[in-house]
Amino acid sequence: MKVGKAEIVCTGSELLSGKLNLYVPLFHERLSPLGFKITREQSSGDSLPDIADCLSGALRRADLVIACGGLGPTFDDLTRQAAARTLGRRLVYSRACEKILSINYGLKKLPPNFKDQCLLLEGAKSLENTNGTAFGQVLTRGRKMLVLLPGPRKEWEPMFPNFLSEEIKVFFNFPPVTQIRLHSAGLWETQAEKLLRPAMRRFKGLDFTVLAGPGTVDFLISGDDSRGSVTKAAAACRRLLGRSLYGEDAATPASAAGEKLKAAGKTAAGAESCTGGLAAQLITDIPGSSAWFNGSAVVYSNRAKIKVLGVKPATLERHGAVSAPCAREMAAGARRVFGSDYAFSVTGIAGPDGGTPAKPVGLVYFGLAGPRGVGVFKRQFRGTRGFVRACAANFILDELRKIIK
Amino acid sequence: MKVGKAEIVCTGSELLSGKLNLYVPLFHERLSPLGFKITREQSSGDSLPDIADCLSGALRRADLVIACGGLGPTFDDLTRQAAARTLGRRLVYSRACEKILSINYGLKKLPPNFKDQCLLLEGAKSLENTNGTAFGQVLTRGRKMLVLLPGPRKEWEPMFPNFLSEEIKVFFNFPPVTQIRLHSAGLWETQAEKLLRPAMRRFKGLDFTVLAGPGTVDFLISGDDSRGSVTKAAAACRRLLGRSLYGEDAATPASAAGEKLKAAGKTAAGAESCTGGLAAQLITDIPGSSAWFNGSAVVYSNRAKIKVLGVKPATLERHGAVSAPCAREMAAGARRVFGSDYAFSVTGIAGPDGGTPAKPVGLVYFGLAGPRGVGVFKRQFRGTRGFVRACAANFILDELRKIIK
Repeated sequence: MKVGKAEIVCTGSELLSGKLNLYVPLFHERLSPLGFKITREQSSGDSLPDIADCLSGALRRADLVIACGGLGPTFDDLTRQAAARTLGRRLVYSRACEKILSINYGLKKLPPNFKDQCLLLEGAKSLENTNGTAFGQVLTRGRKMLVLLPGPRKEWEPMFPNFLSEEIKVFFNFPPVTQIRLHSAGLWETQAEKLLRPAMRRFKGLDFTVLAGPGTVDFLISGDDSRGSVTKAAAACRRLLGRSLYGEDAATPASAAGEKLKAAGKTAAGAESCTGGLAAQLITDIPGSSAWFNGSAVVYSNRAKIKVLGVKPATLERHGAVSAPCAREMAAGARRVFGSDYAFSVTGIAGPDGGTPAKPVGLVYFGLAGPRGVGVFKRQFRGTRGFVRACAANFILDELRKIIK
Repeated sequence: MKVGKAEIVCTGSELLSGKLNLYVPLFHERLSPLGFKITREQSSGDSLPDIADCLSGALRRADLVIACGGLGPTFDDLTRQAAARTLGRRLVYSRACEKILSINYGLKKLPPNFKDQCLLLEGAKSLENTNGTAFGQVLTRGRKMLVLLPGPRKEWEPMFPNFLSEEIKVFFNFPPVTQIRLHSAGLWETQAEKLLRPAMRRFKGLDFTVLAGPGTVDFLISGDDSRGSVTKAAAACRRLLGRSLYGEDAATPASAAGEKLKAAGKTAAGAESCTGGLAAQLITDIPGSSAWFNGSAVVYSNRAKIKVLGVKPATLERHGAVSAPCAREMAAGARRVFGSDYAFSVTGIAGPDGGTPAKPVGLVYFGLAGPRGVGVFKRQFRGTRGFVRACAANFILDELRKIIK
């Protein structure tokens, strides 16, 4: 099967001096369905010769080169010039881009830094930016394509559905790689892998990737589906995962719970201590979540647990805030206060401090209140504060999904 | 100033097919104090010629090359062979390594895959691995150094304090690079840059990097501080940023507000609609935030605004939930319910839906209640749902910082 070679060039000194590069997995996601495999990624600082060197190497090796970053209006934005030097092309001022910017920003006359944004590589097509002033650029030379994208995700991401994916598809015409992504929760990475091994053995021609997250394991199956093998492999994996499978593609534990609530015409609310609003945040990341989510009480102090949720002072005194009885009263309180059909609660020790031999860091109690009463769970997670919190939020959102009929 | 050039080569197909590369910031942290700047990072799949090509380019350009990953015992671990090919050196079996492995694992006779782990580049020193079987390797050639490290963080990280840092320091003897990171909020990237231009002009020998976030701009100043120029440049920037400067190094808008609350012996709480718990989440990301943060009411539904925070139904009817009066009542309600000295509120339209001509997507009202009453702010942000929410959370956390005496 013919797979295109793509290389990514990320520019920005920040990527080499402390900032995480979050983009390579995102480009992988965008490029796989277009029939491309990423064969190399390079990050370069804001130096014109360095960027030019990265680009020329990438253009020598790959079919498609995506350069991300360095198209902004400031002194350290040099990708346009580096690409011009690499290709031996001029930068030409585009009246069409000028027009778009003056309409989008309601300006009669563009300020100088806006004018720089209208410089295109000679022969390049521009990609409109719905969230910024830097245009993307697409240039083909022989059988190769160079794409320049602005650095911020919110600026380059919409360019794929708007024009860029189509442009790549038409130019290269590679057979599409079909990718199915299954999401599971409540399994360890090794458990998930073992569980799915029979399917991996049966469909040897396909690519299987296992991605472990906090309390979640994703499973990517990709390959040529012209004979239905990706579809069949996914069906086999679904059967093997059973109730641990919470969704596919862009689903999250929160969206999976939301879909079930919406379908049942029910609402949910939360009460969070150690997750500190993370569960609410994961829920409200979803547009339209207000239809099924009433809110969450982030109750960090004991006073807030008592006053907002009606937890009994005696419960806190006798069992402490990190306890099954407190989790139970928090969930029941949230259900009552928010007037929702279901309510979850989370109370635990996220760390790094605050652990004791009896209640170590990572110990979390959960409550889940519904029309038929309140259930309580206890889990011990291992990892950093952030990891414990993420595991806890994903755990209870997944239990919420499972409880809804 | 003499700064060493370092390049990082990460190997592993997973880095190009969905897994985040978390290591570059960690290497930056280890190498900066040794006088190195990372000038390029490359990620390559598990292909011998690709790894060899990455290494040979890096060795041509940089003083120090660190290759991470691909030293394990499985078929796709190819970095050793790639380095041997690049350098034209043989791999030689090390009896010393064999001895260490047999002692560490209590084995009289090593199994075959352990034996592969004892292959060193001819002339290389080995770095003992306290958490695995793969040795690190250090090889110098002329004025350059190549370091091979195993992929897992827990395996390579202890190698720096154990031997590697010292080895690099003695071989290169570069003056250490000092880096100061200033954080500002409430400025656009271009505003911040313009504001700081005088300092950038005055300290031409230093490196300045501008990093824009949602509602925040970070400023990195780095260079040789042996004559105090980094310290002086930072002082100049601090003066220029004034009240927009909220902190340094690892500070966030939430931690900056927290530090001021802690110093004043005061507490805060929140009421969040459109940010859906994000502000609480940013606060509770900070270990020990329970000392100054009581909690936050995530009130997505009108019923919750009324019931949990005491917002008047008439206010919602007359002005809607996204309005100054509602923001005011939410902040006052949160202050009362949580019994805190200060309380903030956020209510707006995060999008992508729900906007109207009068109340477009990105419009957010904020309240800030304190001992002297309630103030209200209105802002219009532009961007995706996630970006609007992040801007809103950072904005109100920064206003909270400013209000505390």
